[in-house]
Amino acid sequence: MAWVHLVTLLALVEYLIFGMLVGNARSIYGVKAPATSGHEMFERYFRVQMNTLELLIVFVPALWMAAAYWNPALVAGVGAVFLIGRLLYLRGYIADPRARSLGFLLSSVPIVALLLGVGVGLLRTLF
Amino acid sequence: MAWVHLVTLLALVEYLIFGMLVGNARSIYGVKAPATSGHEMFERYFRVQMNTLELLIVFVPALWMAAAYWNPALVAGVGAVFLIGRLLYLRGYIADPRARSLGFLLSSVPIVALLLGVGVGLLRTLF
Amino acid sequence: MAWVHLVTLLALVEYLIFGMLVGNARSIYGVKAPATSGHEMFERYFRVQMNTLELLIVFVPALWMAAAYWNPALVAGVGAVFLIGRLLYLRGYIADPRARSLGFLLSSVPIVALLLGVGVGLLRTLF
Repeated sequence: MAWVHLVTLLALVEYLIFGMLVGNARSIYGVKAPATSGHEMFERYFRVQMNTLELLIVFVPALWMAAAYWNPALVAGVGAVFLIGRLLYLRGYIADPRARSLGFLLSSVPIVALLLGVGVGLLRTLF
Repeated sequence: MAWVHLVTLLALVEYLIFGMLVGNARSIYGVKAPATSGHEMFERYFRVQMNTLELLIVFVPALWMAAAYWNPALVAGVGAVFLIGRLLYLRGYIADPRARSLGFLLSSVPIVALLLGVGVGLLRTLF
Repeated sequence: MAWVHLVTLLALVEYLIFGMLVGNARSIYGVKAPATSGHEMFERYFRVQMNTLELLIVFVPALWMAAAYWNPALVAGVGAVFLIGRLLYLRGYIADPRARSLGFLLSSVPIVALLLGVGVGLLRTLF
């Protein structure tokens, strides 16, 4: 499970860094807590973090379950694509919200692959 | 653990579908990213996804921990009620935010049952 | 794993209570769903729940992974600091959003410690 843990760890650290960027954007663009809107650039950073949170809640359980049915190193490799997808999503969204598609695709495809892997693994186990 | 994994998988897929409905509502009701408000119907879809996220973060660990103390097939059965509760929550909330109570109840009760199951299981293990 | 499960259970229950406080604030301050803004006090309770959600998504996997490399009772002890940090965060934020720093620190430090623990454990396993 070490490679799966490594990818999980990196995904959690990446997400925490996105959270720090939001805190940073709060002070740069003068958006005082508890507000989460008020400046377009702040909202972009905030949405990157939130969207990553929205995917992370699926990513971690999918990764861990997939590793119960398939070679954990292979599963970790699929998970590594997610890490890159999130970086591209951040870069794209900050540049222009309409440029977030490639990063979103590279984050979504590995999640769908992991969920399919769990589904196939379950079918083989249950039937 | 196969039944527990199956319920987890279905909960994750259901949640991703709610996320797609939000993306869809974004284009139908003309709410451009990064905004998350601006049209009542968009906000309803958005809140359904967010509320599901808010519960999913409890549901998955509670389900997995409960399966360590009780019959996993029974635990999966309790978890299946959550899946139905979320569907009713979506239907209710979209029709009228005040009609979300039944779905919320059917999503909350299984979570509370799972947490109680973990608590009782822990008491029996630790004492 | 019983102590790790106990800390996880308490973290999930604490978070659900924060969620109930949000529901309560909704009716006290007259913020009707699906709105999540409109009254400063409601927004504070809402941000406390959201910030706890944002950290919980890291806390639970970090706690569980750390317990695979270190003494689970020690890991649970580090996790217990998070529970206290969140309580102080709630108290501070409700009193004054600028007073949320101590609680945030006491919630973040155990998460960083757990992630470092996973990192060191992984290095020792993989190399």
